[in-house]
Amino acid sequence: MEGEGGKAARRLRMVSAHLAAAAGGGEPAAVAAALCAARPPYELPAEALALYIRDKHWKLQAEVIEFFESRPDLRTPVEISTSEHRDLCMKQLQALVREANIRPFRYLLEDPEKYFAVTTAIGSVDASLGIKMGVQYSLWGGSVMNLGTQRHKDEFFDGIDNLDFPGCFAMTELHHGSNVQALQTTATFDAATDEFIMHTPNDGAIKWWIGNAAVHGKFATVFARLVLPGGGGDKGIHAFIVPLRDLSTHAPLPGVEIRDCGHKLGLNGVDNGAIKFSHVRIPRRHLLNRFADVSPSGEYTSPLPSPSKRFAAVLGELVGGRVGLAHSSAAILKLGAAIAVRYSLLRRQFGPAAQAEVAILDYPSQQGRLMPMLAAAYAFHFATGFLVERYAGMRRKEGGEEVVGEVHALSAGLKAYVTAYTAKALSVCREACGGHGYAAVNRLGALRSDHDIFQTFEGDNTVLLQQVAADLLKRYNEKFKGTTLSVTYTYLRESMVGYFSQPNPITSRWEREDHLRDPKFQLDAFRYRTSRLLQTAAMRLHKHTKTLGNFGGWNRCLNHLLTLAESHIETVILEKFIDAVDRCPDAGTRTVLKLVCDLYALDRIWSDIGSFRNVDYLAPNKAKAIHKLRDQLCAEVREVAGELVNAFDLAAHTTRAPIAMQAEAYSTYTRQVGFNISDSTTTPI
Amino acid sequence: MEGEGGKAARRLRMVSAHLAAAAGGGEPAAVAAALCAARPPYELPAEALALYIRDKHWKLQAEVIEFFESRPDLRTPVEISTSEHRDLCMKQLQALVREANIRPFRYLLEDPEKYFAVTTAIGSVDASLGIKMGVQYSLWGGSVMNLGTQRHKDEFFDGIDNLDFPGCFAMTELHHGSNVQALQTTATFDAATDEFIMHTPNDGAIKWWIGNAAVHGKFATVFARLVLPGGGGDKGIHAFIVPLRDLSTHAPLPGVEIRDCGHKLGLNGVDNGAIKFSHVRIPRRHLLNRFADVSPSGEYTSPLPSPSKRFAAVLGELVGGRVGLAHSSAAILKLGAAIAVRYSLLRRQFGPAAQAEVAILDYPSQQGRLMPMLAAAYAFHFATGFLVERYAGMRRKEGGEEVVGEVHALSAGLKAYVTAYTAKALSVCREACGGHGYAAVNRLGALRSDHDIFQTFEGDNTVLLQQVAADLLKRYNEKFKGTTLSVTYTYLRESMVGYFSQPNPITSRWEREDHLRDPKFQLDAFRYRTSRLLQTAAMRLHKHTKTLGNFGGWNRCLNHLLTLAESHIETVILEKFIDAVDRCPDAGTRTVLKLVCDLYALDRIWSDIGSFRNVDYLAPNKAKAIHKLRDQLCAEVREVAGELVNAFDLAAHTTRAPIAMQAEAYSTYTRQVGFNISDSTTTPI
Repeated sequence: MEGEGGKAARRLRMVSAHLAAAAGGGEPAAVAAALCAARPPYELPAEALALYIRDKHWKLQAEVIEFFESRPDLRTPVEISTSEHRDLCMKQLQALVREANIRPFRYLLEDPEKYFAVTTAIGSVDASLGIKMGVQYSLWGGSVMNLGTQRHKDEFFDGIDNLDFPGCFAMTELHHGSNVQALQTTATFDAATDEFIMHTPNDGAIKWWIGNAAVHGKFATVFARLVLPGGGGDKGIHAFIVPLRDLSTHAPLPGVEIRDCGHKLGLNGVDNGAIKFSHVRIPRRHLLNRFADVSPSGEYTSPLPSPSKRFAAVLGELVGGRVGLAHSSAAILKLGAAIAVRYSLLRRQFGPAAQAEVAILDYPSQQGRLMPMLAAAYAFHFATGFLVERYAGMRRKEGGEEVVGEVHALSAGLKAYVTAYTAKALSVCREACGGHGYAAVNRLGALRSDHDIFQTFEGDNTVLLQQVAADLLKRYNEKFKGTTLSVTYTYLRESMVGYFSQPNPITSRWEREDHLRDPKFQLDAFRYRTSRLLQTAAMRLHKHTKTLGNFGGWNRCLNHLLTLAESHIETVILEKFIDAVDRCPDAGTRTVLKLVCDLYALDRIWSDIGSFRNVDYLAPNKAKAIHKLRDQLCAEVREVAGELVNAFDLAAHTTRAPIAMQAEAYSTYTRQVGFNISDSTTTPI
Repeated sequence: MEGEGGKAARRLRMVSAHLAAAAGGGEPAAVAAALCAARPPYELPAEALALYIRDKHWKLQAEVIEFFESRPDLRTPVEISTSEHRDLCMKQLQALVREANIRPFRYLLEDPEKYFAVTTAIGSVDASLGIKMGVQYSLWGGSVMNLGTQRHKDEFFDGIDNLDFPGCFAMTELHHGSNVQALQTTATFDAATDEFIMHTPNDGAIKWWIGNAAVHGKFATVFARLVLPGGGGDKGIHAFIVPLRDLSTHAPLPGVEIRDCGHKLGLNGVDNGAIKFSHVRIPRRHLLNRFADVSPSGEYTSPLPSPSKRFAAVLGELVGGRVGLAHSSAAILKLGAAIAVRYSLLRRQFGPAAQAEVAILDYPSQQGRLMPMLAAAYAFHFATGFLVERYAGMRRKEGGEEVVGEVHALSAGLKAYVTAYTAKALSVCREACGGHGYAAVNRLGALRSDHDIFQTFEGDNTVLLQQVAADLLKRYNEKFKGTTLSVTYTYLRESMVGYFSQPNPITSRWEREDHLRDPKFQLDAFRYRTSRLLQTAAMRLHKHTKTLGNFGGWNRCLNHLLTLAESHIETVILEKFIDAVDRCPDAGTRTVLKLVCDLYALDRIWSDIGSFRNVDYLAPNKAKAIHKLRDQLCAEVREVAGELVNAFDLAAHTTRAPIAMQAEAYSTYTRQVGFNISDSTTTPI
């Protein structure tokens, strides 16, 4: 680790050097100012910003990236078949663990912040590798460690850690993804042999989309209904370790039929398979028995009082996956935004008559696409960083039940919100880079296709947002019983009072820039919206549930509830960004972060201006002023856009896209397709 | 063709039969009504609808589809390497022309509506094939026929038509895509040898992204600056036929360096290449000389008075490509929507306690995603159908200059608007199909990746929308000179009067359903918005141009101008939809189309509610009523959603996605991954 620290420090010096060299990025003042009404550029102490936003475990990340940079044999080619990609991805993971001696499984259990730091770093190498690692350690390994007991740790820890036991997380079935309680696979206890009999009762119950199953998996954690024969009956969903393939021959074991789910839109380095069980017998000890157990005589016991508590405990242990996805999604957004912004500084097209063409980032249309996205990347950086911290605290048992509840709701909400935003943003990046964005070598396609499923797996976003809404309603109801609300929800308490009065007709007309850029105005607006949505949702639910029942009433209000959840998450993100601005020790950096934060806030308000106008929270003159200031801030952020993406500390071998090289981008590109070109012959026009 | 008519009629009977069988699609009344407040279902005469919306050349389309259905050897596999895909795509095109005897080139020149009908049909076979055909016939062939004269037709018609001369359209360069006037390739006349010398003066001028170049092209239409030596100088961009490869050996000709642009996000059946010319000599007769010519002595002549008129004439001949892309994009949207809707009728997840799970299309969240999209697919069907008709009329020289102007603006606007909408919609389709939407076999990924570049090629959408805005401003200025406006723009004249007064404070509060569903209210709202944007854009342009010049002033107003263009196009689309509803002869069908049209209109108004509220065109109570009615109409359209997608007449072998099969979808899917399953064992839960 000492040697690695030295490497990392060298790397940081390189970053600082190119930050200084790249300042500006395009032609400054004259034309740009005319196009976009920018004020004199901000002074950005680039090094201070890079230091402020770097990961706590940046040395470890640098180590991972250096390792892959040193191993061209492990680099994923631009075009690769599914079958080769799966092999390569396994080789990458094995090399990481066995050669670079990075031990994700240990980090996961001992220091989750280190685990997520590794996830983020390898995500830029190949998103498939990040997911392959997640399947092995967070899903398969995590389920064994968190749902099992000491006997499972003794038997499986080493094999999982060193990759001798590649494994799967077999929850989803062909007919059921989101509705886990309706899974149909059965595990029937047979006291005569002290075994469970794992069985797929119909084809809708075939385990489907199981990562690591098609090629590499030796074992799976299988989620199935625990059935006790005789009077015992169906005890609901439990987790079991099921061996899939012979440890030496790798052939599927008797009764285990495995098929290949085949080619996917993306993440083809991960081998998803379908598994059908025909009366497969496993020993009783393979029940992951932390939350429930079965005795040799078939007696069922549990430390938890009800089936719903047990189900919640089983699913609750899986929250780490969502934390990781939110965090990784933010990292992918940074990568996409960096490519699009750097290209937009390089690319020149059209210009005033008889003058040089201008950089496309000088067009307000391009700024309007990319600058709010860059602001969102910063916002998500701080929000998901906060989530990772809270999650690590929760794993260390700090803060008790209140933190557990907060982390559950926040991980669901941030996972849904950040992945949905990033998915759309990656499309915008591709479009912003025009035809060159369509070349696979420039990566935006693979980033989008790989990331796309982040919106669906580990909890479909639509389902997760409902969990957030349910949590808010629970807290709303508690409020009226006088229970203390946790820190994240303080604003609800504060602004709920304000909600019962109408919007203030005087402040609703204030339109001065210092007011619009006042964090208090911004937060009040977000909080008012959430409080109002929450209040009206509660009333509507009360009304409809009476006539339609719980299920019908909830669904009648569904779109309202989803909007509520998004509004809440957006508020939390803004809060964390404002906190991060306040905490920034360097004054110059703080000024620029404040600019970016203001753009984030005003862009979000403008994108939902109808909601604010419909309740007259903002008067027409103020709405117009927000629109104008939002465009103005886009122009100002453009002046420091190059520095803002440089501060992400993404070296050329991390971004890789030729169009995003910071120097000689076009000649990198022409060489890449095979022209034999000296740099000096490329005239940058 | 007689035999084909019989086949097509049989096909139509099959469609009618499955329309009748599939009515409903999910569990009707009880649960659905509780969830989404639907009124009693509409009576939809499904056959009448299918007949009403079918393509004028549906028999030809059926013939194309039957041909490919009969040739499994020509089917594109779910996973295929770039190199194999290129070969296969060429084979598909050759088989279409030489074996099925479909002659796209003749249709293009004689009856463009037939050409577009073929484009749409083969687009569902493989989007790459559609684009490969477009490159060969519309771009390469079209440029030779439309920019050249009789000598070019004599020399090239047969080779282009029968595919002996695969060719390219070499316009874009590495440094210049949108800004065609800044292309740098030169064609210098040498009177001594009666030749042009084609040359790439620097690496930024390498022709880039040229379809058909990497593998198949024998010739290219190359766009280059015509340079006359001595005092003649640079005459601007002209088109030339340049032989690329030897007709017998297929080796690149001397001085022609061709490289492969490589793997792309999609459309990998099309072989895009980069071409660098080193003093390549071509005979003088290879100048495509319809709009300008050079005599043997080097004298330059043109029937057109100015360089800008010549440039406009050259680019103007290419408008057909945009017409085709808008039309194809609408067809791809139908395909994506059909897959997502059918799956959403099949898939059941969650439900009331102790009851069957409900189809996911019964959730208002899923309806809110998919029903407006289905409405948009119908809207685009009629709008792009209108465009194709007008374009065909223009080619037949009907309507004169006014129609030319209308077709140019409308093709630019619809291409930009429809492709942007479809690109986003395909992402929504994938998300709406959850994990199963991520399987390549279910096609949503390939549809999105293939379609993505529709937003960029044949004119970047951002640039095309500016053409629309410029056209509107030109007409606005003409209005004040009293010039007649053409039909499409009549509303501007009508509503401009209304604009100068403030919104009516009485009607702005009307919220009854019959008012909100009145086409007059809907069109007035759209037209008011456009007129206001146009009026304010004209004022702002006037102001900023004075201080910033034309380029600076225009760009200062850029986002405003883009919004104006979108608003205008949305208005035209709604007009065409309302016309199509009115023209529908069958009363029951008309009622359902009216429902779909109302959803389109109200969804578009709601999605931009801020604009309407900001100028108090709609009062808060009315905005709320629109929101409520929009959700209500989503629920009503859901009741006929199965029939609405069936009317697109997409048979199972056209949609292909297992999850979109109308019967036995899950068992098709399980068989597809390799399970050996009889239908009877699949329990649909």
